Amino acid sequence: MMASPKVKPVPEASLRRLPSYLHLLRRLHAGGRELVSCTHIAESLDLNPTQVRKDLAYTGIVGRPRIGYPIRALIASVEHFLGWDNTTDAFLVGAGSLGRALLGYAGFQRYNLNIVAAFDVDPERIGTHWRGKPILDVDELPDLAGRMHVHLGVLTVPADAAQDAAHLLVLSGLKAIWNFTGVALEVPREVLVEDVDLGASLAVLSNRLAQRLRSAEEEESERHVGGHGA
Amino acid sequence: MMASPKVKPVPEASLRRLPSYLHLLRRLHAGGRELVSCTHIAESLDLNPTQVRKDLAYTGIVGRPRIGYPIRALIASVEHFLGWDNTTDAFLVGAGSLGRALLGYAGFQRYNLNIVAAFDVDPERIGTHWRGKPILDVDELPDLAGRMHVHLGVLTVPADAAQDAAHLLVLSGLKAIWNFTGVALEVPREVLVEDVDLGASLAVLSNRLAQRLRSAEEEESERHVGGHGA
Repeated sequence: MMASPKVKPVPEASLRRLPSYLHLLRRLHAGGRELVSCTHIAESLDLNPTQVRKDLAYTGIVGRPRIGYPIRALIASVEHFLGWDNTTDAFLVGAGSLGRALLGYAGFQRYNLNIVAAFDVDPERIGTHWRGKPILDVDELPDLAGRMHVHLGVLTVPADAAQDAAHLLVLSGLKAIWNFTGVALEVPREVLVEDVDLGASLAVLSNRLAQRLRSAEEEESERHVGGHGA
Repeated sequence: MMASPKVKPVPEASLRRLPSYLHLLRRLHAGGRELVSCTHIAESLDLNPTQVRKDLAYTGIVGRPRIGYPIRALIASVEHFLGWDNTTDAFLVGAGSLGRALLGYAGFQRYNLNIVAAFDVDPERIGTHWRGKPILDVDELPDLAGRMHVHLGVLTVPADAAQDAAHLLVLSGLKAIWNFTGVALEVPREVLVEDVDLGASLAVLSNRLAQRLRSAEEEESERHVGGHGA
């Protein structure tokens, strides 16, 4: 057996920045531009040029000093690196309010993510369509995942059902879960999980906002009290 | 003037965990339970009991040794701390695909977030309704924000329009922006921004998935080559 070359995982922060590069590059390309420098990208996105150069190097492309990168090649390199040059088929599990919101979100096309079907346990939903996508019985998922070679699951079930649904996705052979449930899922090491927790995100914002509004009120009432106190 | 007591900001990680406590507590409460211990919470959510005790203490409640917390009081304490005991009115800016998806998401009620109106620049959208919410001309936003005392903006415009829209929200006196645009917004220090970047989240997942699938393919082809190589 040959030894596989060890692939070093790219830092998550770099991966998270790549879509913003891609967005800028597509805009520059649409505007007729052919070359771009790290410095230009860095200035446009308020980043450090050295960081930009490192991030882009992960995708396998190196700019030429004083010339920069050919934009078309750079776009292709980033897209390939993110796996966005091929359409990724996905199943969505949980066709409730959030699930249907995501089914209706056309923006996923930009990332070449194609939700091919949604699954649910509710007999009233099963057999219907939403935004052109069929809602199927979750019992059909294991068989369909194998036949359709679907590797990615978008999990939008209620929190109570999250762990069971994740278990089903793992048993069905899915390799990655985009987890919108807010639950810390237990899955085998080889299954990837990426969390988007709207509740947690809103918790940060609403606590800080409530605090600011409270202290603004206090300042206001202190002003009315006038010169009292020390 | 009296000196305001210095409020220490609570660590973001603690804030992010609070909604999961709340979810568990509501479930226990619905099941008729009256008391809960840190250890029970920690075990249910796969966390460290000391961490749970610290997180809950931030909300101003302290459990009694060997007895724990009264669940109803604990729920009230966490909700108040997150500002979720009062409805927070919000404006949504950008009634495109993502904006309409969020307008249709009933789950925000759980966090007492109430999107009262959406705003857009597209004449075809202005004057219509989506899921019962009016879509108004963005030019009306500054005046309405003042009259309706709205402090929170949900930003779902395309990336190109993000900075300008954020600027408008700031000028209109909004104090917090829930930013779904994927753009690093420049706002004055006193304005809060919380980012939810679906593109960045998917970038992490799809890159790692593409890498796994590639190395699985390589292993497969090595197996077909059989005993060749060293």
